[in-house]
Amino acid sequence: MQRLAQQVAFITEIDKLKKIQRQTILLDRSRRENDAEHSWHLAMMVILLAEHSNEPIDCLKVLKMVLIHDLVEIDAGDTYAYDEAGHHDKAERERAAADRIFAILPPDQAAELRRLWDEFEEQKTADARFANAVDRMQPLLHNCLTEGQTWQQNGVTRSQVIKRCRPMENGSTVLWDYMLDQVNRSVAAGHLRDDSTEP
Amino acid sequence: MQRLAQQVAFITEIDKLKKIQRQTILLDRSRRENDAEHSWHLAMMVILLAEHSNEPIDCLKVLKMVLIHDLVEIDAGDTYAYDEAGHHDKAERERAAADRIFAILPPDQAAELRRLWDEFEEQKTADARFANAVDRMQPLLHNCLTEGQTWQQNGVTRSQVIKRCRPMENGSTVLWDYMLDQVNRSVAAGHLRDDSTEP
Repeated sequence: MQRLAQQVAFITEIDKLKKIQRQTILLDRSRRENDAEHSWHLAMMVILLAEHSNEPIDCLKVLKMVLIHDLVEIDAGDTYAYDEAGHHDKAERERAAADRIFAILPPDQAAELRRLWDEFEEQKTADARFANAVDRMQPLLHNCLTEGQTWQQNGVTRSQVIKRCRPMENGSTVLWDYMLDQVNRSVAAGHLRDDSTEP
Repeated sequence: MQRLAQQVAFITEIDKLKKIQRQTILLDRSRRENDAEHSWHLAMMVILLAEHSNEPIDCLKVLKMVLIHDLVEIDAGDTYAYDEAGHHDKAERERAAADRIFAILPPDQAAELRRLWDEFEEQKTADARFANAVDRMQPLLHNCLTEGQTWQQNGVTRSQVIKRCRPMENGSTVLWDYMLDQVNRSVAAGHLRDDSTEP
């Protein structure tokens, strides 16, 4: 059965997502997390936090989006949120990866997943904006709860965090307001450097 | 906002799933996988293989089921599929874990997730049977593709694999037939001991 063989080939290929390391560390600080764990965590957040979306969302579609959104990193690697140089050719590297990876599937499923990935990247729909909100919230929450360990290692400041994470409010003002408060608590606790008064 | 604080507390708690090691190894054989990675992989399989279910399923519900089905192992630990002693008190340990972990959520969400977990455990609905089919298929596929490394380390035989995995056919005869063929190929290749002619 050719169709099932293609599906299994894809399921086999994406096992590699478990080897793509992110900058985010686990809450027990024992190690960095990988993209598969991150994607699972986002899916749980979609299930539990959907009620806080600014607009009604299609939960099944948003779940698919967050489950697949990082598959391109199998080829393109993880680009750290605060790595400006790495972001120059990120879009190009990720498009090439999407071309290769989704094509392993039967054509109808390849097209569906590619549409979902494109929709996430384009950020033009309520579904994509909410998926993006949880994708920015999860590492931010980890940073706040681990006393800013990776912020400090990478010299990241409050203004960089705000710039990076403020798009959350396009998906959920409730979640952004909550996380902005957490960020300010991190500053107050000395875990994140406040550069708001710097020249 | 008390409700959001409870949701975030749960999202924080379940980070521990990333530390629960399974017997299954990654396809590159570099290390064992953990429950969070496994749950993500199952969710991808639900999205891609739903068409092979014996009966129509509610994809969103089955996704939620596979995403949460192993959360109880945060307290109860992973019980290896072929560990008969470990299975004696598995149900009791896991129920106690479900009582504690889901109760972190707001009551309505705690009740929804508990109902889904109970439904998965009871195996009485088409949704639960398909979720179980992919839950048995994924480690089986990993075993076949890694030349039976963990089978050999644990002295597992073909009849044990068949007994453990045959419930797949209650969810999907297509997927079971496919995997039975893979198992027989593993036997033919010498990766799994055939005890069918043993006394």
